[in-house]
Amino acid sequence: MADSTVYRASTTAPVNIAVIKYWGKRDPQLNLPTNSSLSVTLSQSDLRTLTTASCSASYTGPDTLLLNGAPQDVSGARTQACFRELRALRSALEASDATLPKLSTFPLRIASENNFPTAAGLASSAAGFAALVRAIADLYALPASATELSRIARQGSGSACRSLFGGYVGWEKGSLDDGSDSLAYEVAPASHWPQMRAVILVVSAAKKGVSSTTGMQATVATSSLFPARANETVPRRMREMEDAVRNRDFDAFAKVTMKDSNSFHATCLDTEPPIFYMNDVSRAAVRAVECINAAAGKTIAAYTFDAGPNAVVYYLAEHESEIAGVFKALLGDKDGWTGSRGAAVQENKDGLAKIDDKAAAALKDGVSRVILTGVGEGPISVDSHLIDGKGEVVQA
Amino acid sequence: MADSTVYRASTTAPVNIAVIKYWGKRDPQLNLPTNSSLSVTLSQSDLRTLTTASCSASYTGPDTLLLNGAPQDVSGARTQACFRELRALRSALEASDATLPKLSTFPLRIASENNFPTAAGLASSAAGFAALVRAIADLYALPASATELSRIARQGSGSACRSLFGGYVGWEKGSLDDGSDSLAYEVAPASHWPQMRAVILVVSAAKKGVSSTTGMQATVATSSLFPARANETVPRRMREMEDAVRNRDFDAFAKVTMKDSNSFHATCLDTEPPIFYMNDVSRAAVRAVECINAAAGKTIAAYTFDAGPNAVVYYLAEHESEIAGVFKALLGDKDGWTGSRGAAVQENKDGLAKIDDKAAAALKDGVSRVILTGVGEGPISVDSHLIDGKGEVVQA
Repeated sequence: MADSTVYRASTTAPVNIAVIKYWGKRDPQLNLPTNSSLSVTLSQSDLRTLTTASCSASYTGPDTLLLNGAPQDVSGARTQACFRELRALRSALEASDATLPKLSTFPLRIASENNFPTAAGLASSAAGFAALVRAIADLYALPASATELSRIARQGSGSACRSLFGGYVGWEKGSLDDGSDSLAYEVAPASHWPQMRAVILVVSAAKKGVSSTTGMQATVATSSLFPARANETVPRRMREMEDAVRNRDFDAFAKVTMKDSNSFHATCLDTEPPIFYMNDVSRAAVRAVECINAAAGKTIAAYTFDAGPNAVVYYLAEHESEIAGVFKALLGDKDGWTGSRGAAVQENKDGLAKIDDKAAAALKDGVSRVILTGVGEGPISVDSHLIDGKGEVVQA
Repeated sequence: MADSTVYRASTTAPVNIAVIKYWGKRDPQLNLPTNSSLSVTLSQSDLRTLTTASCSASYTGPDTLLLNGAPQDVSGARTQACFRELRALRSALEASDATLPKLSTFPLRIASENNFPTAAGLASSAAGFAALVRAIADLYALPASATELSRIARQGSGSACRSLFGGYVGWEKGSLDDGSDSLAYEVAPASHWPQMRAVILVVSAAKKGVSSTTGMQATVATSSLFPARANETVPRRMREMEDAVRNRDFDAFAKVTMKDSNSFHATCLDTEPPIFYMNDVSRAAVRAVECINAAAGKTIAAYTFDAGPNAVVYYLAEHESEIAGVFKALLGDKDGWTGSRGAAVQENKDGLAKIDDKAAAALKDGVSRVILTGVGEGPISVDSHLIDGKGEVVQA
C-alpha cells in the first residue's frame, strides 16, 4: 500500500506589465523571444495567483490542475514542459540523496486561484505559470534560483519568466538555440523605486481579439517594419529603460514606455491581416494621459497597452491626485475604488476639467472597472493551502 | 489706359487616392518626399475641382483666388511657388516672342469649385493645386508637359503632382536637391485597366485630426520604424504595384494596397506623440473587407485609408455586387446612392449576411455618406468658365 503522505507547497505570484514589450518568438517551442523585454511587477495585494502544488504516492491518475475551481487541460506542450523540467531537477536531487522521497514519480495535484476577475483581460498566464513553477519547485525543495526557474516558467508562458521577480525585471532574449541563456533578471528591486503606481483602466466588452501567441507569430512572418523594432529599436530602448529605472528617472521611464507601447501596436497594425488591440476607448486613454501631462507641464503619467484595449497608466505616488484623482473624478462610479488604495484617492475635479471632453466621454462610456496598484514583490511562499493534508481541494 | 482684354482658361482636375502612400518630406520647402508613391486617379464625374484662371492688364491689386465662393489666402509659400514658377515659364515665352501679350505681368484672378462636399475630409488639395497649375499653364499657353507641370504642382501640395495624370500614376521621389527629378509619371492610363472601381465610406464627425503636413514631419522626426518603411518597404512595393497594374493583377494590387495603408498608419502610431487617423469605424471597414474577401474565397476588395478615418475600397466592376451591393444593403439609407452609379447598384443582402455583425453595426452607425467612383482621366480643358469675359466671377 502506498504511503498516504501528501506533500504540499503553496506560493503566490504576481502579474507583470511590460514597459518594453515582448512580441515575437524566434523559437515557438521554447518560447524564445525575438527581443528582450522589461516589466514592472505589480503588487500581489491587488493582483496575484495563489497556487498549491501537491503530490503523493497515494494519488492515482494523471497530473491535474484546477484553476478557480475549474479543471484545466495540462496535456499541452507548455505545461508538460514545465512539469518535465521540474521533475528532472527533482529526479537529479533524488539520485544524489537516496533518503529523499521519490516525489518526482508521484502524480501532481495542483490548485490555483486568482484574486482578480479573469474576464478583465489581464494577462493572467504570467502569474499563473510563475506560481505553478515556483510552487512545484518549493514542493520539490529545489535549490534553483529565480533565474533558473525563469528558464522553466518561460516555456509555460513567455512573460511568466518575469513574474518570478519583484520590482523591475528584464528578460534577456539570449542567443543560444536551447534557450538556456533566455532568462529573467532583476533590474532593480521594488524597494529601489517603491513609489511606482499604476491605474489599470479595464475596457468593457473587451472581446478577446487575436491571441498573443497567434498574433506575434503573424507579425514576425508578415510585418516589414518588425525587424527594425526587434533588431534596433528595442535593444536601444532596453538600455534607456534600465538607465531610467536605475536613476529613478520617471520622465525617461514614461517616454520610453509610451513609445514602446506604440511601437508594439504599430507592428501589430503592420501585420497581414492587421491586428488591432487598441480601440477608441484605448485612444481616449492615450489622449487623457496627454492632457494630464500637458496640464502638469511635464511627463507625470505613462500609458501602455498589452494585447488588448485595457490601459495601464504608470505614475509616481507623489502625483496620485493628478492621475488617480482625475480618473476617480471621471470614473468614480465604476468598480475598483472600494479597496484601501481606491478609497484613499481623492477626486480631482480641477484636474478632470483639463481632460479633453471627447476623451472623457469615451472613457466614461467604455471603461468598466479600474484597478489601482503599484510595483510589488516577486513570488511569496505561503501557508495558506488550496489542497488539504488529505489531498482534497479546499478554499484557501 | 490698360487693355481691358480678359484672358481665361478653365480646367477640371481629379482627386487621386494613393495605394502606396506619400508620408514624409525630405525637403519641406520643395515638398520633396522621403519615398515614391503611387495612386489611382478617380473619375471627375464623381469628384473634381473646376478652376478658371484669368488675367488682364485691367486687373488691379494682388493675385486672388476664390474657392467655392470664399476668398483664399494666396500669400502662402506654396501657392506663391506655383505662381512664380508658372510666371517664369510664361516670361521666357514672352522673351522669345515679342508679339505675345505680357500675361506674366498681369494680376491673376482665379476661381475654383469642388463638386463634392469639402466637409467629407477627402484630400481636396491635390485636385485643387492640379487644377490651379493646369489652368494657369493653359492660360499662359505653356508648352509644358504634364510631367513638367507635376514638378510645379508638387510644390503646392505634394500629392497634387499625381492629379496631373489620369489612370495609374507614380510619383518618383527623385534624388536631386532642387527637386527637378521629383516628378509624377503615368504607370498606365485609365484605359489600360478601366474596370477599377472605388467606394468611399465617409465617416461622420470626422473631426480634422493632425494635419498631414504636421503629422508626416513628426513621423520623420520621431518614428524609429519609419526609415525601414521609406528605405526598404516602399521601394519594393512600388515595383510590386507597378507590376500589378501593368498585369491587371487585382490580387497583387489589393494585397499591396492594404499592406501599404497599414504600414503608413503603423508609422503614424509609432510617432511621438502617436497619431491616430483610423478609428473604430475605420477598423469596422477593414473587418468588412476581410469578410467580403473571405466569403469570395479570394481578394476582390482592398481598403486604404488616407490621413483620416474615411475608407476607400477598391474593387473591379465585375465584383460590384459583392462590394458596392453589400455596402448598399447595409448603408442604403445614407447619402450617395442617388447618382447614376449609385442607383445602378443592386442591394446584396446575401452578401451582407457574411459581414461580421459588430462591424456592420459600427459602419451603419459611423458612416455618413458613400461616394461611388472609379478610375478616371487627368485634367480636362473646359469651356465652362467661373469668370466671365469682364473678369467677374460667375456660376459655371
